[in-house]
Parts: sequence; structure tokens; C-alpha cells
Amino acid sequence: MNSVTPRVPALSLNTATVREQWNLAQMIEACARHGIPGISPWRDKLAELGATRAAAMIRANGLTVTGLCRGGMFPAATAGQRQAAIEDNLRAIDDAATLGAKCLVLVCGGLPPGSRDLEGARAMVRDGIAAILGHARAAGVPLAIEPLHPMYAADRCCINTLAQALSLCDEIDPHRTPIREGAHSAVLGVAVDAYHVWWDPELDRSLERAGADRLLAYHICDWLVETRDLLLDRGMLGDGVIDLRRLGQRVRAAGYQGFDEVEILSRHWWSVDPDVVLGTIRERHPACVV
Amino acid sequence: MNSVTPRVPALSLNTATVREQWNLAQMIEACARHGIPGISPWRDKLAELGATRAAAMIRANGLTVTGLCRGGMFPAATAGQRQAAIEDNLRAIDDAATLGAKCLVLVCGGLPPGSRDLEGARAMVRDGIAAILGHARAAGVPLAIEPLHPMYAADRCCINTLAQALSLCDEIDPHRTPIREGAHSAVLGVAVDAYHVWWDPELDRSLERAGADRLLAYHICDWLVETRDLLLDRGMLGDGVIDLRRLGQRVRAAGYQGFDEVEILSRHWWSVDPDVVLGTIRERHPACVV
Repeated sequence: MNSVTPRVPALSLNTATVREQWNLAQMIEACARHGIPGISPWRDKLAELGATRAAAMIRANGLTVTGLCRGGMFPAATAGQRQAAIEDNLRAIDDAATLGAKCLVLVCGGLPPGSRDLEGARAMVRDGIAAILGHARAAGVPLAIEPLHPMYAADRCCINTLAQALSLCDEIDPHRTPIREGAHSAVLGVAVDAYHVWWDPELDRSLERAGADRLLAYHICDWLVETRDLLLDRGMLGDGVIDLRRLGQRVRAAGYQGFDEVEILSRHWWSVDPDVVLGTIRERHPACVV
Repeated sequence: MNSVTPRVPALSLNTATVREQWNLAQMIEACARHGIPGISPWRDKLAELGATRAAAMIRANGLTVTGLCRGGMFPAATAGQRQAAIEDNLRAIDDAATLGAKCLVLVCGGLPPGSRDLEGARAMVRDGIAAILGHARAAGVPLAIEPLHPMYAADRCCINTLAQALSLCDEIDPHRTPIREGAHSAVLGVAVDAYHVWWDPELDRSLERAGADRLLAYHICDWLVETRDLLLDRGMLGDGVIDLRRLGQRVRAAGYQGFDEVEILSRHWWSVDPDVVLGTIRERHPACVV
């Protein structure tokens, strides 16, 4: 490494990227084979193997678990449903601990069915996170609030900007409590996904505000022009308009030292040979980020 | 009007709502017939009649022109293209003046083809608006920057929050210059469209910051769950999740005294008898907004 050629960050594979082609065991093996040192499983994939077996297999292949996707989904119409969501989050924290995951990613949830009360949903998110924070700390698993693109505000996540996610962190965890004594990460922070935040005029300021202890994960893919589906038309690195080089530099300048986790939800890439998908990611990544 | 039953704001028809079914002459006649006292033409429809004939016909039918859609589209790859955009905006201002429009709505434009430089595009927008402001003032036509939903940042508009639009106003027109002496409206302000801003956690603060002189237009429709198309799946009032009542109250509390302009870009509603579309708007509007 020198000042002219910055180091290419380590890659991690979010399992959503090849979820239609492979099971978790195949993904773990493929990461090792393709020289991808990190993995971030979704819970549907984890359920196939069980957390204990998955953890052993990931360890045996020398991979880092950059996150577990996902907890969250707190807003619900009834108190009973909200309590069920909290209990499900507690189980997710336990699984993340078993995996030694760097964080549990929280996709916080949108409006309860039939509701137009966005402020109310946001309050339910706050209360839900507050209810699981103690368990997360005891388990040594940082919680990463992932602000989702505003186009998901109604149905997936009512936390829609990095500034909003950080204000929520400050409200619930005002002292930036380290996950354990001397640890780099706070018990509560954010997962920054390029797809969700790239448009935000306040982004640079928010990244600085987040700082090293709140920046728990960094997800990358690309925004396609034109985008044909709100959920399943995300782009391969380099195929879209996000300046991933600039954004990665800002994320790292703000103190993030972790992996570049590639998460591409795409009908197109789900139809491609998954070894080609991983090969394309490996090939595109350096030129897109440094 | 009393304190229990607030007044229903006056309606305006944005011509995009029935653009596939009617020409402008038909729309003007239909507004009068349906008791819709305002109209906001797009320039493609205006071109059919010409601004002078359209203005006479609108006047003859007693309608208020709540806006002309649209100027903007400033970013471009070459200086020549950017100059052409500015000249097109000057013509739009002249047409808006001929119509006596309350404002010219600016959809500012996205990234130039092949560009990933969002900051650069935003600077081109600033420079473009600054270049046409004098002509707008001389013509007596306020310019309304319309922040568009972040999902349009790449291809339609790189101004994506009300706060960002207001900062742009303050940068270009720091003294909130009235459009003419004693006028209620500033020469530069914003068009607030419920569809584009409803998700914004900073929305209430931004509306207060805007105030009466910057709030030049208020557009309404609804956000459908699920939304099947990024552009052409907007919802009829009441069919989605936007709390239009609350939002309208906030817009008016911030000083807006104008029309509720209905703009619904929707393949579905474009397939419906336009008299039914206008009848549905008239029927739904009071219950959705007060």
C-alpha cells in the first residue's frame, strides 16, 4: 500500500446476491473458492443449516461474518404482534452471537397494514430497538440500523435517511456505549448501503457524524438507469450511476474499517450462473472502489 | 366555515392526470363542467393550443392557472446543451406569463448521460436557475423548485428533499425577493408534492422554514402499496398511505393559501373515462383533506 494506490477493501458476500441459486453451504464454499473473505447470511438461508452448523462451516472456511440480515420489522397493529417481533429479534441476536457476526442488521419495518401514521411507526421502531438493546449488549452483538431508500418507507422501513438513523441511535444510546470494554464498535450504529443513501444531499455530513463507532457495515451495489422494479432491479458494481469510489472514500474517511459487503437483489443476476456472479463481483470491485 | 369544519381547499387539475385521454381544450371545458376552479397545464398540452389561445380559453372558463409544468432539466453534458436548456426555460417563463400562471414549476433534471457526478449536476441546477431568475422576475412569474422523490435522483431531478430545495432558494435568492412589490410570493420558492415528500422525517421543519412566500404550489396524489412502477403508478386520493389530511394542515399552517393541485401519473387512471377520473377526484378530495 502507498499513497498512490489505496488498498482495495476486503469483500463480503451478502447471501441475497445469489439467494435463488445456492444454499448457504454452497455460498460458504464458493466464497472460499473465489477468494471472498467475508459473508453476511440472511436468516432464511441460515435456517437451512442452523446457526451452530453454519458457524462451524464458516469458521472452517476462514470467513468473517460481516453481519446477519436481518432483525427489525418492529411496527405492527397490535401489542401482541409487536411483542412477537421483539422476541424474534432476540432470537436473531442469539444467532448473530453464535455466528460471531460483526452486527445484526435491522430493517426496521414500515407502516402497519391500513395505517397512515408514519410518526407512530417510527415510534414503534424506537421502542422495539430500545427493548432489545440490553440483550444485544449482553450477547456482544452490535445492532446496525439500516436506513432504507425512501421508496420503501411504506412497506419495508420507515427509517429513510442516515441522519434519521443516527438521531435514533443518539436517542436510544446517547453515550455511544461500546459493545464491550475497549471495543471499536458501539452497541448501536448503522449499516450504510450505497443503494439506499447515494442520493442524500446530507450524506457527507451524516457519515462524519456517524464516526467509526456507529459505522457497523457498508453495503454496495449500483443504481440502474432505468430501474424497472422498486425492489429487485439493483445493479452490479459499475453498471449504474453511484459513484462508489467517492462514497467508499467518504465512508472510510469517517472511520469505517470493515468489509465492502455486496448485496444485489436482482432478478437478472439471480438468473445468472452464481459462479459468474461472484466472478463478476471480484473482477469489478477494485476498479469501482479505488 | 367554522372551527369544527375547516374549509375544503380549492382544487386544481394538473393536466398529467388525464393526459392520455384529453387535449387541453377538453380539459379546460371539463374543469368548468366538474366545478374544478384551477388548472395546471403541462407544456406538451399547451403546445397543442398555443399559450395565447389557451390563456383566452382558460380565462373564458373562469379558471385559475395554478402553475405551468414544467421548466428545469438544467444539467447536460455540454455548455451548448445547458444554454439550450436555459433558453427553453426563458420561453417557458414567457408562456407562464401569458397564462397568468401562479408559478413555473421546475423539475430540475438528473445526471447528464454517463455521469456519476451528483454534486456537479446539482451545481448545474443552481447555475441554471440563477441564469433565468431575472427573466422570471421581469415577467412576474415565480419559479417553483419541485423536489422530486429520491428514486428520481438519477434520471429526473437531483433536488430530492424540501430542505435541499429551500437551501437552493436561499443560495440564489437570499432575501426572499417578492415577485412584485407587496406580493405574497417570492420570485423563487418550491412546489411541494405529497408523493415526493411524504416520507421525509424533516418535512414539518422544512415546511415551517419555507413559509408563505416560498410555498408556491401544493400537489397531491397518493402512494400505493405496493407501487408497481417508479413513475406511472401513483395513486388516487385515498387509495394509498399518505396522510393527506395531516400534510395539508401542515402546508397551510406554514402559510400556503393556494389550491390543492391533483397530479396523478398512472397507467391505471389513464385507462379510465376521464370524466370518471375527475368525478372521483371531486368525490374523494374533501374526505381526504379535512
